[in-house]
Amino acid sequence: MSISRYLPILDWGRRYDRQALTADGLAAAIVTIMLIPQSLAYAMLAGLPPVVGLYASILPLIAYAIFGTSRTLAVGPVAVVSLLTASAVGAVAAPGSADYIAAALALAFLSGLMLLAMGIFRLGFVANLLSHPVISGFITAAGLIIATSQLQHILGVRAGGHDMVELVRSLLSALPQVNVPTLIIGVATTAFLFWSRTHLRPALVRLGLAPGAAALLARTGPVAAVAVSIIAVVTLDLTAVGVSVVGEVPQGLPPFTMPVVDPGLWLALLPAAFMISVIGFVESVSVAQTLAAKRRQSITPDQELIGLGAANLAAAFSGGYPVTGGFARSVVNYDAGAQTPAAGAFTAIGIALASLFLTPLLHFLPHAVLAATIIVAVLSLVDLGALGRTWRYSRHDFAALLGTIAVTLGAGVEAGILTGIAISVLLLLWRTSRPHVAVLGQVPGTAHFRNIRRHDVVCAPEVLSLRIDESLYFGNARAIESVVQEAVASHAQVRHVVLNCAAVNGIDASALESLELIMHRLSDQQIALHLSEVKGPVMDRLARTEFLSHLTGQVFLSHHEALAALAPEATRTADAARRPPIDAARPFPEH
Amino acid sequence: MSISRYLPILDWGRRYDRQALTADGLAAAIVTIMLIPQSLAYAMLAGLPPVVGLYASILPLIAYAIFGTSRTLAVGPVAVVSLLTASAVGAVAAPGSADYIAAALALAFLSGLMLLAMGIFRLGFVANLLSHPVISGFITAAGLIIATSQLQHILGVRAGGHDMVELVRSLLSALPQVNVPTLIIGVATTAFLFWSRTHLRPALVRLGLAPGAAALLARTGPVAAVAVSIIAVVTLDLTAVGVSVVGEVPQGLPPFTMPVVDPGLWLALLPAAFMISVIGFVESVSVAQTLAAKRRQSITPDQELIGLGAANLAAAFSGGYPVTGGFARSVVNYDAGAQTPAAGAFTAIGIALASLFLTPLLHFLPHAVLAATIIVAVLSLVDLGALGRTWRYSRHDFAALLGTIAVTLGAGVEAGILTGIAISVLLLLWRTSRPHVAVLGQVPGTAHFRNIRRHDVVCAPEVLSLRIDESLYFGNARAIESVVQEAVASHAQVRHVVLNCAAVNGIDASALESLELIMHRLSDQQIALHLSEVKGPVMDRLARTEFLSHLTGQVFLSHHEALAALAPEATRTADAARRPPIDAARPFPEH
Repeated sequence: MSISRYLPILDWGRRYDRQALTADGLAAAIVTIMLIPQSLAYAMLAGLPPVVGLYASILPLIAYAIFGTSRTLAVGPVAVVSLLTASAVGAVAAPGSADYIAAALALAFLSGLMLLAMGIFRLGFVANLLSHPVISGFITAAGLIIATSQLQHILGVRAGGHDMVELVRSLLSALPQVNVPTLIIGVATTAFLFWSRTHLRPALVRLGLAPGAAALLARTGPVAAVAVSIIAVVTLDLTAVGVSVVGEVPQGLPPFTMPVVDPGLWLALLPAAFMISVIGFVESVSVAQTLAAKRRQSITPDQELIGLGAANLAAAFSGGYPVTGGFARSVVNYDAGAQTPAAGAFTAIGIALASLFLTPLLHFLPHAVLAATIIVAVLSLVDLGALGRTWRYSRHDFAALLGTIAVTLGAGVEAGILTGIAISVLLLLWRTSRPHVAVLGQVPGTAHFRNIRRHDVVCAPEVLSLRIDESLYFGNARAIESVVQEAVASHAQVRHVVLNCAAVNGIDASALESLELIMHRLSDQQIALHLSEVKGPVMDRLARTEFLSHLTGQVFLSHHEALAALAPEATRTADAARRPPIDAARPFPEH
Repeated sequence: MSISRYLPILDWGRRYDRQALTADGLAAAIVTIMLIPQSLAYAMLAGLPPVVGLYASILPLIAYAIFGTSRTLAVGPVAVVSLLTASAVGAVAAPGSADYIAAALALAFLSGLMLLAMGIFRLGFVANLLSHPVISGFITAAGLIIATSQLQHILGVRAGGHDMVELVRSLLSALPQVNVPTLIIGVATTAFLFWSRTHLRPALVRLGLAPGAAALLARTGPVAAVAVSIIAVVTLDLTAVGVSVVGEVPQGLPPFTMPVVDPGLWLALLPAAFMISVIGFVESVSVAQTLAAKRRQSITPDQELIGLGAANLAAAFSGGYPVTGGFARSVVNYDAGAQTPAAGAFTAIGIALASLFLTPLLHFLPHAVLAATIIVAVLSLVDLGALGRTWRYSRHDFAALLGTIAVTLGAGVEAGILTGIAISVLLLLWRTSRPHVAVLGQVPGTAHFRNIRRHDVVCAPEVLSLRIDESLYFGNARAIESVVQEAVASHAQVRHVVLNCAAVNGIDASALESLELIMHRLSDQQIALHLSEVKGPVMDRLARTEFLSHLTGQVFLSHHEALAALAPEATRTADAARRPPIDAARPFPEH
């Protein structure tokens, strides 16, 4: 039981049959065709030799098939993680050097260890730091940076930079060196790929293909572009007119590699490894959950951490670089009918065969075609419409979204994410720093207490009833102190304050300290502090402190009991009064 | 009205009378006597010439008297801010150099600007980042570091270091150079000051003083120690045997100083200035609130930011260094009967007179006596008992407390605070990342719905009722997705999911995205998603999105209406059933 928790393959592998084999095999064939150009392109985006992309698409897929819980997630190189890799590795090693490749391996290793540790210690909640606006803003900005960074390959020039401003400046100054044949290939491929995303499927259907087959075949546009462009380069001898091509791609299976043990390097890569782990995990889990739900299956997020960790460790030991679950590929895998993680293992076999036999063909593949593949893929992730939608829904979330986009574009990917997290956390604190506190009065003729601002209720002048509509924690503890003090200052006759705790799910140490301060300050004013309707778990915890024994007042089971004890006269009168008619004009229940 | 909001002096100044003048004058005299040795000592702790402490106790106090809202807060140099100053300024300039003094001025300037900006933009909530365990842990650790750092003056040796390990190592290696006369003065003064804290007041009462006068006179122990030690040094010629003394203290009023405009320096000091602002503000406001409450007065935290900001700017322009409200001095000021902020202005006059006339007397004041003053003051802030109390109350708060203490001691004050904040925020996320979600059933014979695990209720098999007991935000959005998916996976006959939102006070953009995902995933399984008891403000916000128009189900006013519409048969049966007896064994209301 416990072993199969960590090895999901023992569970689904036991029931594996010929039907699943056929389905997985077909899905794997289609994903392999899609993955070959993608893996080469993303390796280029990461600043690595194209073959590294192939290596990262073999062993990591098998590792995920053993440890992962999603039946349809397609693991491998993806755009955003490749960009993060380029940014992190570029900061510690020169592009094109052996150190650069070694640093990418170390990054995959660290990221694998981190994911594994997070999985074992069930720390997946850390991913919650990334709110939706932060992720969405980051991916939009990363998509724009990636697309811009690839323009150099479309133009046939050399340019670069860590943020948008540097990139655009560098591209503009390189414009006079544009290589026209490269530009033609690049623009034509980009146009074809954009067209094929939306129009290839209907076109194939019109040619007589079955809709399902057409949908799958339409995904092979990038492979067609690769094949056509290689033929064009060879037959027209385009390298002679300056079209840059991939060149020699080593033939064979991935080498066994050992990540370097270099504490200085590891320390420098640690923040990036953490970001790659968390962002890769968030993206991967959200795809996996969506696809699993479609078939009423479920995935286990903590075990997904272990699966992705194993995949990254496999990448580190087989000449790859950081990987995670890809969105588009996983959807194709699902649509093509993948039944189990074995589809991923079969994809790995397909890529291994390609590494063994197809690499000589890739020599004349133009960089411009890979760049076009990347541009078309990442621009589909750019969602500027989210700015308008988020603005309408919530100004706070809009601030997080805009901050993340602006800082990512202006100062790079790591600063962007950190800014987004900081904005989200500060706004969360701000929202909860003034909790809703209602002064309560008794609804005449009932034992109910309601907000005096919203209901016709009666109050006893010597008792102040306050209901706090939030758990008490460090973010709002001080605000509660002020609220109570202000409420007391404006009710001169008050001798008792009763805090109604019906909505308080927890009281942390900061809030307990504040409650003690409130009690002492009230006591200096000859006012007693009482609590009512304290929830069981909160009461259990308070019972472990000296707070209850110091309490100047009492703890009441119900608010009505409190009032009956503290203001018996007024409560008897209110109990006996006639109940007011219900206000039917109020459409939704309110505080 | 709006001017007197920013200038509280216009409010209390208008009603100022002879009675208040007498009270404020007396309090000021006592605080002045207490402040002279403290200001010299804290300047030494900050690595600055002693006279800087006097300068920081003149204009800043007047500025606070104009802009502050607390009637009894005593502003000036304090121990923790002095330590933070030493740490920040020591990182950018050599102790004893002119650059060091200039950097301290720049720090006061930046900190003043920040406090002012936070006050004007009402950003005081940022202080909520510092939970009570973090502040308490930081102050305990800072107290230990400060006390240890002062041991060199007691021993008459030179030692130093940024953290506890360096300090202790440096002290141990300097032990052979101990100066015995200095050690005798240091130990005797420390012993006297500790004794005077608890035993001087009863001793004075026994000598026939009135209890009130004895309490105030007992606070003058440090001044007595200063006077006696100066006399001893002069009469016994102790400088000849190696007792280190303060030396020449410039006579006169504070100079006018301009903080240097150096963007590089400012950027380097920015994080420290932020920490000094926030920590100084938190400490100051908590003292001010406690003292105000004792007289049923109140303070305005946002205006306190402006008051402290003005005080720090005044320090920057008059040769001082960062200041804030001090705990012990404010209590003395309050006990001595201060009525208005004018007491602070009178204290400033007292210190100005001291700068003009008393400084020559301070020449022979031993460093060991100042060190003893600091040690006795800060050790009273050290609260190791908090470790045990917090452990018993909450393991999470204990982790934040212990982490802050350990990192502050081991890696310095800034790393310590940041670690504490990071632990608090991560634990907050962790606590809220699995919100309490109850499956609901109908209490037979009523329209009430309760948790099926805790009550005898009935459910319709085709409707799954879930109540989420927390506002929905990025920290728990993904968890809600999993919870709903798991609940649906274990109820095979479900056709409708109804989310009861009675406890949901807000839904941020991340949670809205999750609700949409949940709806789509349920829809893939032919299950409709409904909402019930949505609060008014939440509904208003949802109405601005497309979510409600896409909703596969409906929004119901009450949960009973939802069930009556979705499972009419079962609901009619439950409505007609006999109500179960109330379970009297349950002492507190639970979920």
